Amino acid sequence: MHVDSDGTTDWLRSAAVSARAASVALARMPEAARNDALRAAARALRARAAEIVQANAADLVAFDAAGGTAAFRDRLALTPARVDAMAQGLDDIAALPDPLARTLADWTRPNGLRIRRIAAPIGVIGMIYESRPNVGADAAGLCLKAGNAVILRGGSDSFHSARSIHAAVTEGLCAAGAPEAAVQVPPSTDRAYVAAMLGAAGLIDLIIPRGGKSLVRRVQAEAQVPVLAHAEGLCHTYVHAQADPDMARRIAANAKMRRPGVCGATETLLIDAAVAPALLPLIVADLRALGCDFRADARARAIVADLRAAGDADFDTEWLDAILSVAVVDGVDSAIAHILRHGSEHTDAIVTEDEAAAMQFLRGIDSAVGIWNASTQFCDGGEFGFGAEIGIATGRIHARGPVGLEQLTTFRYVVTGNGQVRP
Amino acid sequence: MHVDSDGTTDWLRSAAVSARAASVALARMPEAARNDALRAAARALRARAAEIVQANAADLVAFDAAGGTAAFRDRLALTPARVDAMAQGLDDIAALPDPLARTLADWTRPNGLRIRRIAAPIGVIGMIYESRPNVGADAAGLCLKAGNAVILRGGSDSFHSARSIHAAVTEGLCAAGAPEAAVQVPPSTDRAYVAAMLGAAGLIDLIIPRGGKSLVRRVQAEAQVPVLAHAEGLCHTYVHAQADPDMARRIAANAKMRRPGVCGATETLLIDAAVAPALLPLIVADLRALGCDFRADARARAIVADLRAAGDADFDTEWLDAILSVAVVDGVDSAIAHILRHGSEHTDAIVTEDEAAAMQFLRGIDSAVGIWNASTQFCDGGEFGFGAEIGIATGRIHARGPVGLEQLTTFRYVVTGNGQVRP
Repeated sequence: MHVDSDGTTDWLRSAAVSARAASVALARMPEAARNDALRAAARALRARAAEIVQANAADLVAFDAAGGTAAFRDRLALTPARVDAMAQGLDDIAALPDPLARTLADWTRPNGLRIRRIAAPIGVIGMIYESRPNVGADAAGLCLKAGNAVILRGGSDSFHSARSIHAAVTEGLCAAGAPEAAVQVPPSTDRAYVAAMLGAAGLIDLIIPRGGKSLVRRVQAEAQVPVLAHAEGLCHTYVHAQADPDMARRIAANAKMRRPGVCGATETLLIDAAVAPALLPLIVADLRALGCDFRADARARAIVADLRAAGDADFDTEWLDAILSVAVVDGVDSAIAHILRHGSEHTDAIVTEDEAAAMQFLRGIDSAVGIWNASTQFCDGGEFGFGAEIGIATGRIHARGPVGLEQLTTFRYVVTGNGQVRP
Repeated sequence: MHVDSDGTTDWLRSAAVSARAASVALARMPEAARNDALRAAARALRARAAEIVQANAADLVAFDAAGGTAAFRDRLALTPARVDAMAQGLDDIAALPDPLARTLADWTRPNGLRIRRIAAPIGVIGMIYESRPNVGADAAGLCLKAGNAVILRGGSDSFHSARSIHAAVTEGLCAAGAPEAAVQVPPSTDRAYVAAMLGAAGLIDLIIPRGGKSLVRRVQAEAQVPVLAHAEGLCHTYVHAQADPDMARRIAANAKMRRPGVCGATETLLIDAAVAPALLPLIVADLRALGCDFRADARARAIVADLRAAGDADFDTEWLDAILSVAVVDGVDSAIAHILRHGSEHTDAIVTEDEAAAMQFLRGIDSAVGIWNASTQFCDGGEFGFGAEIGIATGRIHARGPVGLEQLTTFRYVVTGNGQVRP
């Protein structure tokens, strides 16, 4: 980490050192004490709701002066109900099973050494996020539950809100005997704090960016610290020749249109040549009725003539919108080849009644989540039963798919002997 | 990745793309076919042993001309017996359990979705290592067994050896029907290939450096790809007040002097004030008889007067030599505090007959491996029963401690439904 003259890296170093001590202390706290601290933080958020909404108003004034969009303003705005929802989120996290109370493996060697691999906190997590102020409270709750300290760097837009939320959460933690340094926020919106976090090798153990693609790419490119990034979700639904037609229609409509803007939304429909003539017109009609537009290859347009033609780049596009790319394919291998070429290893589904075809598909793709006969929109921490998630990891190291409490832990070994020395 | 004019990044991009395809093919190969490929590579190494030794002779001529040390020359030199040992290493890896045949979790949601987390290859691994040519063969074997492709960048010293080993391994793989691109070696010793590998975000999934500290630090600082690094092993052995004296002596001698140069060697002895007057003189005598020197704090020197005084920096030094730092501490918390301040979160041990003290110690430290009543030198993939290891990870993400086959895998989810759509 380079040394600057304005104290940014000094702040970060000092924050990270105290955060590590806080993480060690959190990891030693019994589960009940960690949960008490979360509930105390929730109470403090509720007690300070008016103050938090007032701080948020200052952010909104600045936002309006800068002329931001209505959609961004809605993400930024806090109401007493939204503050209560944040508090409820912490209560919900307190009620989840303890991710540290897990023995992941346990074996005994011929020399009598017993080796246990047990869950352990990661340590110090750096969270870099954009507008929504609630992300800070959610991330703090999940990190603390897993015994981690967290340095929260929210968007400049939400600085006052984030400081106010942080003050309330910290008040609650301290009241419950948890370390004050467990959650920290840089003292200003200076972007140098982001650079300092990204360069903090050995001080921060993991950076989690949460926001738009440009934020995530910048973090991935600049970080000298491991990154758990959520990048693209270019998801496919493949309707196989042996698909149940009604199921295929229901799944296609849901996978694309339930919420077209989430990363688990299907962006490309692959439909088998054997069923496309009969089924594609029905799927198109279903989706059109929901407001969806299409980018189709020549073979699909030979079946439904008025579909807009796809360019090859369209199959590499994460629409996050009511647009569906459509291609006709010849069997499972052809679908797999399309997905390996154009996909993002996020979530890909097959609809079929043929188990052998499903297994071939699920083995052949290389995606974090492979789905047989269900909507790709199930790629979600809540739907996986994780209770809460901090994002969807698209890398291949440490965690893939929804990142919940378990993915915010690492492990360590405990070896017990009776005097063994190594030959 | 920046574009250069000399083709280095072109080579890397092309190598990584073909490596990814090879990884997908390897992952689909049945376990028996992957093992056959490893055994075929072993046969090819044995068949080409004379040729490999000849290639190695060219490296040794260049090494001697440059005037290298005898110790490095010994690491670099290959004999028919050493080639056979490499081949045997591949046969041994073939005999290990399949790391891909593991279901890590399996649960069913209230809506009927069944979610399985299954082991999967990481994908494309970049291995950057120094002199010993056998590291390339070992790494190739471990990576292939786990379904990964690997790009091997050995030291310039061993370039001819590495090319010759690579040719033999690849001949074996191809003969057994495994993809030729599964193992690749850059075409020259140009250091630009290292830079290209470190910048290959999205192309290489994981970089594993294996070598001295300066190599590892450079890789950690420059990589835009996740790194599984083996950095320092500043390990401690703490002799508690309730230690069995004979066990403490045996363990201290083994932990330091069995092989002082391995990363699991104890660098600092912490001895409880309650037993130091009686026990420290015996431990010192044992270790002196084995050729060990000491750097001791004032309290230890008050007990054994002729110990050399330690400076504070000595407790932050990984000796990797026949030198032991010694400090007297007051109980478990004091030992933990010393380790948290000076340790490297690698391997730390307590010797005690008091289970409560052992549990307090093992909970309080934050090390990858915590050991009760055994030598720190047991931190080793072979001793853990992993069969083979590619190094010892000192980061906190993805893997910690010995890195064997399991740690060279990641996971993916397979979700099976019967038509579920998300509400």
